[in-house]
Amino acid sequence: MELPHAFSKEEREAVYRAISQRRDIRRFRSDPIAPEVINNILRAGACAPSVGYMQPTNFILIQNGDTRRAIHQEFVKANDAAVGMFPPERQDSYAKLKLEGILDSYLNICVTCDRSRFGPVVLGRTAQPDMDIYSTVCAVQNLWLAARAEGVGMGWVSIITIEALQRILKLPEHVLPVAYLCVGHTDAFAPVPELKTLGWLPEIPPDELVFYDHWGNMAPEKA
Amino acid sequence: MELPHAFSKEEREAVYRAISQRRDIRRFRSDPIAPEVINNILRAGACAPSVGYMQPTNFILIQNGDTRRAIHQEFVKANDAAVGMFPPERQDSYAKLKLEGILDSYLNICVTCDRSRFGPVVLGRTAQPDMDIYSTVCAVQNLWLAARAEGVGMGWVSIITIEALQRILKLPEHVLPVAYLCVGHTDAFAPVPELKTLGWLPEIPPDELVFYDHWGNMAPEKA
Repeated sequence: MELPHAFSKEEREAVYRAISQRRDIRRFRSDPIAPEVINNILRAGACAPSVGYMQPTNFILIQNGDTRRAIHQEFVKANDAAVGMFPPERQDSYAKLKLEGILDSYLNICVTCDRSRFGPVVLGRTAQPDMDIYSTVCAVQNLWLAARAEGVGMGWVSIITIEALQRILKLPEHVLPVAYLCVGHTDAFAPVPELKTLGWLPEIPPDELVFYDHWGNMAPEKA
Repeated sequence: MELPHAFSKEEREAVYRAISQRRDIRRFRSDPIAPEVINNILRAGACAPSVGYMQPTNFILIQNGDTRRAIHQEFVKANDAAVGMFPPERQDSYAKLKLEGILDSYLNICVTCDRSRFGPVVLGRTAQPDMDIYSTVCAVQNLWLAARAEGVGMGWVSIITIEALQRILKLPEHVLPVAYLCVGHTDAFAPVPELKTLGWLPEIPPDELVFYDHWGNMAPEKA
């Protein structure tokens, strides 16, 4: 038995729509997400590739107010520390950005990687031990695309220390918090990324990201 | 201006189909992939989220035979080293697995992360410096889902050292090879992952991957 290969034109367009219209959302409404929608999104995460089938990823759903306030305090601390790292002329515009929706989103999800799952030797991790973390990141991208298809906003908060997440969420030492996500309904999916609109950094033309056979080579060669 | 929110039922199903029917493919035919299909897949990769809009990801397309043979030799070396790391009773079954399609696929792609792009301070990397690598992994998952929608097989080869990839592909020191991918037409997308079918490791029921408010808590609580 095998699965059919290419999707129909309409199906391909839907996949590309999710990929191109996904946004990092930081502005949320607090109205509930239907449980079946949350379930669909989580199942998409659980379908992610996992190195050696080790399935290292867990999803911690966080609605508890105390927990979220503790997380938010740690964001504020890390964000205050971040401002001073930018060149003086950028510090004002950095400080004005809204970079999280920890308290205003309906749900937070911490996506973790259990680095010890199924023991110390895992197929595919022998030469590249971080492959388990990469598996977990693939799960995050699945969540994000599923959320976009469901019309639900998702934003990734990385301005918080690993140590704070481990302590507040009571993670064992062998469990790495990979992504802290804010999830909720939103009024708008912007047509382009906000940091592009704001001119924070320029877009690199996609063609310039492609090389042939080795780094820096812009033209294909055959042998 | 804003984008419409939830996708239609048909569109959602197409997104979930790509997510659930994506497979790590190791058996390829060598017939060409149409250039527009390759282009669609690469554009999907370039649409990936990137921390602070730093766009750290490049795509090196590898067709050159010498380069692929050099990569394959390094795979063989790393795979020989891997066999001995497994418990004696698993070494035979490990050695029998087909874990790559470097020489038989139409195209190889190395997906890299330029850790220095746009300078040392990047929005969102101040507390978690590996966020640039995570951005690149999101691009890999986009490639994988796009390839699945196009009916093209993709497999991730992680049994090769970072050093070998850096040397053969002439990567500058600040560029990390994140994924080495084999890409090509295939006769079959299996309905379930091969390592599951083979009984290499058991599946964890998806519900057991979900916790509430903190690690290990199986029931939601409110505050």
